[in-house]
Amino acid sequence: MRQFLVLGHDAPTDPGINLNDLPGSAGRLDLLCRCVTSGLLHSHGIREESEVRAILQDAVTVRFEGSSIRQLHPDERSTAARFVGALEDAQDAIGHIEVRSSPGISVSRLDLESNLEAIDTPIVQLHPDGEPLADWEPSADVTFVLSDHHPFTEEEERVLSDYGDKRLSIGPVAVHANQAITVVHNYLDTDGYTEYH
Amino acid sequence: MRQFLVLGHDAPTDPGINLNDLPGSAGRLDLLCRCVTSGLLHSHGIREESEVRAILQDAVTVRFEGSSIRQLHPDERSTAARFVGALEDAQDAIGHIEVRSSPGISVSRLDLESNLEAIDTPIVQLHPDGEPLADWEPSADVTFVLSDHHPFTEEEERVLSDYGDKRLSIGPVAVHANQAITVVHNYLDTDGYTEYH
Repeated sequence: MRQFLVLGHDAPTDPGINLNDLPGSAGRLDLLCRCVTSGLLHSHGIREESEVRAILQDAVTVRFEGSSIRQLHPDERSTAARFVGALEDAQDAIGHIEVRSSPGISVSRLDLESNLEAIDTPIVQLHPDGEPLADWEPSADVTFVLSDHHPFTEEEERVLSDYGDKRLSIGPVAVHANQAITVVHNYLDTDGYTEYH
Repeated sequence: MRQFLVLGHDAPTDPGINLNDLPGSAGRLDLLCRCVTSGLLHSHGIREESEVRAILQDAVTVRFEGSSIRQLHPDERSTAARFVGALEDAQDAIGHIEVRSSPGISVSRLDLESNLEAIDTPIVQLHPDGEPLADWEPSADVTFVLSDHHPFTEEEERVLSDYGDKRLSIGPVAVHANQAITVVHNYLDTDGYTEYH
């Protein structure tokens, strides 16, 4: 399974979200929505083998599973509405116990460290200073950790140095988190590309 | 210059757009907005050497220039508002004469064929059945033509066979137009990647 874990440092943990102001009062929720759709959608379909976890302010995790999600559309606004639904259900989540919000969407009170502890695939940090992605031997089961428009905090770097297996960079131009997810998917999709054609 | 020309088959040519319903009544304008931001934005900045042309219903072209655009944000809604502004100015555009809507945004009544006629770079069609991108020798000045969620029409294929130099595919998994733009940027960015590191 390909998994993407995105840190939303300013993202709301309260469901009172103004869908008309995702980049402003909703704490750049637009960015997390694009990460969800970049992670789970290809043309006319869902990447069933993929999963996206958005960690909001290191306090609430919303998990989107490609294998079971329904009615995920590519636009930001409808995806933001799915976050609202999950955050409404977050009040029922106690400790690390996950609550199913709707098919393929779950919410929990896991922080970054608890997420990484629970993940049993290799963990790769996507970072501008990492080794080139092209030098990496792709793995079918892998979790990529990305930060939003803010750099990783010192505490996140510490946790990632404990749990992470590798730091990779997708190229010399630093791009948005959702763009990095798209590049990683393409890199994994094209492994064996010659055989495909 | 890297240029991306996207065909929006259902996109509105009238400025009466509901910003709360981009995928519905606004004819998948969300998709074109993502193409503009994927084409022109990287992390914390603008790709000054890039340009995006959105052709709406083969009747109106809105051109976004990275070299001069101001206040372009990554979210769909604010980018859609830029389309509204351009379409309001489109009524002043007569024939092929371009009207400057705001810095870096122009509008004209050019169709696909007139656009391709005016473009002096090699023209590459991005198509699921094209040759692998990885087999292509990158060119610094190039125009990529992409379709939205609909396949190219027969007429578009005819025009592209007249003006296009090549058909390329970014991989075995067909992706959204904006995702393809991101992959192409990364492919061109990483040419010479080893030297960069």
